[in-house]
Amino acid sequence: MEMSRSSSLFTMMKRVERSVWFQGFIISIIIIAALTVGAKTYSLPYGVELAINYLDSFITVFFLVEITLRFITHDDKRRFFADPWNIFDVIIVVGSLIPTSESDMVLVARLLRVFRVLRLVSIIPDLRYLINALLKAIPKMGYIALLMFIIFYLFAAVGSIFFDHVNEKLWGDIAVSMLTLFRVATFEDWTDVMYETMEVYPFSWIFYIVFIFLTAFIFLNMMVGVVLDVMTRETAEKDQENQDNHHHALVAQISELQAQVARLSDKIDAQQSRKE
Amino acid sequence: MEMSRSSSLFTMMKRVERSVWFQGFIISIIIIAALTVGAKTYSLPYGVELAINYLDSFITVFFLVEITLRFITHDDKRRFFADPWNIFDVIIVVGSLIPTSESDMVLVARLLRVFRVLRLVSIIPDLRYLINALLKAIPKMGYIALLMFIIFYLFAAVGSIFFDHVNEKLWGDIAVSMLTLFRVATFEDWTDVMYETMEVYPFSWIFYIVFIFLTAFIFLNMMVGVVLDVMTRETAEKDQENQDNHHHALVAQISELQAQVARLSDKIDAQQSRKE
Amino acid sequence: MEMSRSSSLFTMMKRVERSVWFQGFIISIIIIAALTVGAKTYSLPYGVELAINYLDSFITVFFLVEITLRFITHDDKRRFFADPWNIFDVIIVVGSLIPTSESDMVLVARLLRVFRVLRLVSIIPDLRYLINALLKAIPKMGYIALLMFIIFYLFAAVGSIFFDHVNEKLWGDIAVSMLTLFRVATFEDWTDVMYETMEVYPFSWIFYIVFIFLTAFIFLNMMVGVVLDVMTRETAEKDQENQDNHHHALVAQISELQAQVARLSDKIDAQQSRKE
Amino acid sequence: MEMSRSSSLFTMMKRVERSVWFQGFIISIIIIAALTVGAKTYSLPYGVELAINYLDSFITVFFLVEITLRFITHDDKRRFFADPWNIFDVIIVVGSLIPTSESDMVLVARLLRVFRVLRLVSIIPDLRYLINALLKAIPKMGYIALLMFIIFYLFAAVGSIFFDHVNEKLWGDIAVSMLTLFRVATFEDWTDVMYETMEVYPFSWIFYIVFIFLTAFIFLNMMVGVVLDVMTRETAEKDQENQDNHHHALVAQISELQAQVARLSDKIDAQQSRKE
Repeated sequence: MEMSRSSSLFTMMKRVERSVWFQGFIISIIIIAALTVGAKTYSLPYGVELAINYLDSFITVFFLVEITLRFITHDDKRRFFADPWNIFDVIIVVGSLIPTSESDMVLVARLLRVFRVLRLVSIIPDLRYLINALLKAIPKMGYIALLMFIIFYLFAAVGSIFFDHVNEKLWGDIAVSMLTLFRVATFEDWTDVMYETMEVYPFSWIFYIVFIFLTAFIFLNMMVGVVLDVMTRETAEKDQENQDNHHHALVAQISELQAQVARLSDKIDAQQSRKE
Repeated sequence: MEMSRSSSLFTMMKRVERSVWFQGFIISIIIIAALTVGAKTYSLPYGVELAINYLDSFITVFFLVEITLRFITHDDKRRFFADPWNIFDVIIVVGSLIPTSESDMVLVARLLRVFRVLRLVSIIPDLRYLINALLKAIPKMGYIALLMFIIFYLFAAVGSIFFDHVNEKLWGDIAVSMLTLFRVATFEDWTDVMYETMEVYPFSWIFYIVFIFLTAFIFLNMMVGVVLDVMTRETAEKDQENQDNHHHALVAQISELQAQVARLSDKIDAQQSRKE
Repeated sequence: MEMSRSSSLFTMMKRVERSVWFQGFIISIIIIAALTVGAKTYSLPYGVELAINYLDSFITVFFLVEITLRFITHDDKRRFFADPWNIFDVIIVVGSLIPTSESDMVLVARLLRVFRVLRLVSIIPDLRYLINALLKAIPKMGYIALLMFIIFYLFAAVGSIFFDHVNEKLWGDIAVSMLTLFRVATFEDWTDVMYETMEVYPFSWIFYIVFIFLTAFIFLNMMVGVVLDVMTRETAEKDQENQDNHHHALVAQISELQAQVARLSDKIDAQQSRKE
Repeated sequence: MEMSRSSSLFTMMKRVERSVWFQGFIISIIIIAALTVGAKTYSLPYGVELAINYLDSFITVFFLVEITLRFITHDDKRRFFADPWNIFDVIIVVGSLIPTSESDMVLVARLLRVFRVLRLVSIIPDLRYLINALLKAIPKMGYIALLMFIIFYLFAAVGSIFFDHVNEKLWGDIAVSMLTLFRVATFEDWTDVMYETMEVYPFSWIFYIVFIFLTAFIFLNMMVGVVLDVMTRETAEKDQENQDNHHHALVAQISELQAQVARLSDKIDAQQSRKE
């Protein structure tokens, strides 16, 4: 009797957790949480700020209840933490429990509250699929990214050897040089950087032009690679499916024809044997 | 007698409204209206300005007559307003009736006169199709746009928490921070923004680099998505049509062959039965 | 006798004009002409400048001889001017005859000498094909370019109505406003333009953001359109050729099979008739 | 006995040279070499710098040993230098032997040490393939790159004729003008350049707009060309393979059917002959 009551409670919790309105309610709460994050960046009158703090505490408690509910209603407790999205949710929710009053942790606590916005991604399935699709595209760029890094490192080393004394701030060490090269690669005031070094080394424009061409060329190829990869997967599959369907239809029809001819052959054999 | 005359007038109006030269005439008037809009931005001698004002009044009256004619000659009066392009035209034309002399409404009246240029889109069918095609492409970017917005919101929140006191104008609140991040995403003097915060937080370049990579990566994927979407629709259709034609031709030919074999079988059966 | 000698001269000229080494020689002369154009932009010692002037005169005479030769050896004199590349060559060559000493025409004469570089395009067939291919791609962008122009015109009109008094230089009239908007579309210091107007109209960022999104979105679609257009033409053709080859092979084979069955049917008929 | 020992030494060396752990060890050494290159751009305490110098000498010796080993174990000594990657490695390694103490050669020696980073490319096969693939894409852009160069040269010549006296630094000679035009093509503060010349030639914006449109248009087409080229190669091949497989399957099946009908025909012939 006791058990059945607890079991019915469990079933009810499960039904609540999976209902569409509960999902909608969580999404609304996440959006409200996101809005409070935004609101806090404005200087607000004391009353409003207090109200936001109460709202914040409520959201923290609500998220804690929601994740607990989700954990309880999960069929396999061990596999709950196998899903990285669940781990992500738990970290965000538990992290929100850090009090914002302690001066040391105040920034970390505020940051974790900001990251609550990302729970939108973990709660909306379409966004989760999108992220997974984006993550899948990364390893395919692995070697080209490594090549890009080698080029940046090489040019940064050459840059900091030659231009070090021209502008310490831009070419002081290899890390700073790589940042400067990234700036050049985004075309951001790159001529200012170039004109400065050209006053000491008049031919240093070769350095920049070669770097820009190399970077742009490799980037272009990386882009083409990604486009191609997605394309071959999607369009080719669709196309081949159509081809395969056609092919199997033809094979079936010709097989039927073969059977027909075979029956005809048998008939003639039968005719023959009857005659003899 | 009365009725037939009105009916013949109606038929004539319809013929006028749909004639090619009338369409061409409207397009010319719209272009003249666009030119007067442009001309008004120059400081002109009094005589010319007066002439333009008279021209403007004429255009307003002409547009009013044209839309009335279009409404009268429309077969189904109720469905006239079902077409959003018609509603758009009516608003523009009726809005142009606001007198430009009243000081309060002068800007609104001028703006509505500017929007007359858009009537070119509503009158040229090819442009209308193009706009419809562009609008159709938007929902497919829905989730990726949402993801982009979440990333902007997140980085803006983090930015206004940390960099608020560095530069109030760029990172003062979340709205201003999002504008600053949009600036960074367009590579517009983004290093100025970065160098400023790097003086307080030497490692804040990580914030910018991660943001730029995330934005560029997602934008790239969005672009690929749109390209793919249009492509699969257009090329695959054309290709499959060719495949389908070939397939149906083969199926028909083999069917004919089957019928031939069936007739042959019947013939042997007949031979057999005759013999018996 | 006289005639045959002139005819043999004509044949020889024709052979010269079409020989590979003559083409190579012309290309070398064009490159030398291009180099003299470049050299003249430097301040050179008197002797070198004089030498370049003599070289220039020689090139002018050579080009004149070459085009005369080309005209004489052309089979159909009337159709010579039907080829726009020939007209282009004649204009450049005849234009070079303008003396550079007359002060009025000196800039025009120098410009025409610069345009001699373009003769490289008219002489190298691959470049000529490339240009033709590029020109073919233009009309397909017609309507989208018109739409882009309408958007620029509209925003320029709105911009010069509202921002006229903020910065006369950037928003003074509609032409200047369109130039400013083109600058914004290339992301070139667009925030400087925006921050300036935001001081008077705090919400003017909406104007810029909407404009940038519209422009980028339409540009993206234009790009996709061009890619698709070239693609469907090239890949689909190749693919369909393969499909068509396969299809015709199958049709031929099945037709042969049908003939075989038909012969079989005839044989049975013959058997039957013989029996009767 | 002597020979067999040397032979067994040779076999052992070969085994070492091709083992996975030796490859991994070389990669680690290259990464360490890259890190020392980076470390040297920082101002370090004397002790660390000394340690790095010793490390550097060790790396130089190690690379020398490694390349000697690779040469000795190579089956065909003559073909060793046929592989450009081997020549590249030898130059880098031998170049590293230049002492950094001689003041004249110090920069060259440091540069060659920087280029050791590129040995990562020559040692990791995937990176080597990637580079080869990228190099293959270059010739296909040949003519379009030539066209681009002609346009740059032409506009640079026109620019330095007209704008020479406006700004000597930007338009002084044709080389500087081409650099300025490259800056305009990357949209880098191009309006500054334009506004300057517009003060003297108010219509010089036409020059910039035409140049930007031409460059962007040709660049776009170049990009499309590269995408298409890779695409047609990869997707079409895959697709045609599928089509070919289907086709051959159908041909085989129909051939079998033809044989079946032929056997049927023979049977009827046999029947006939037996009867007679």
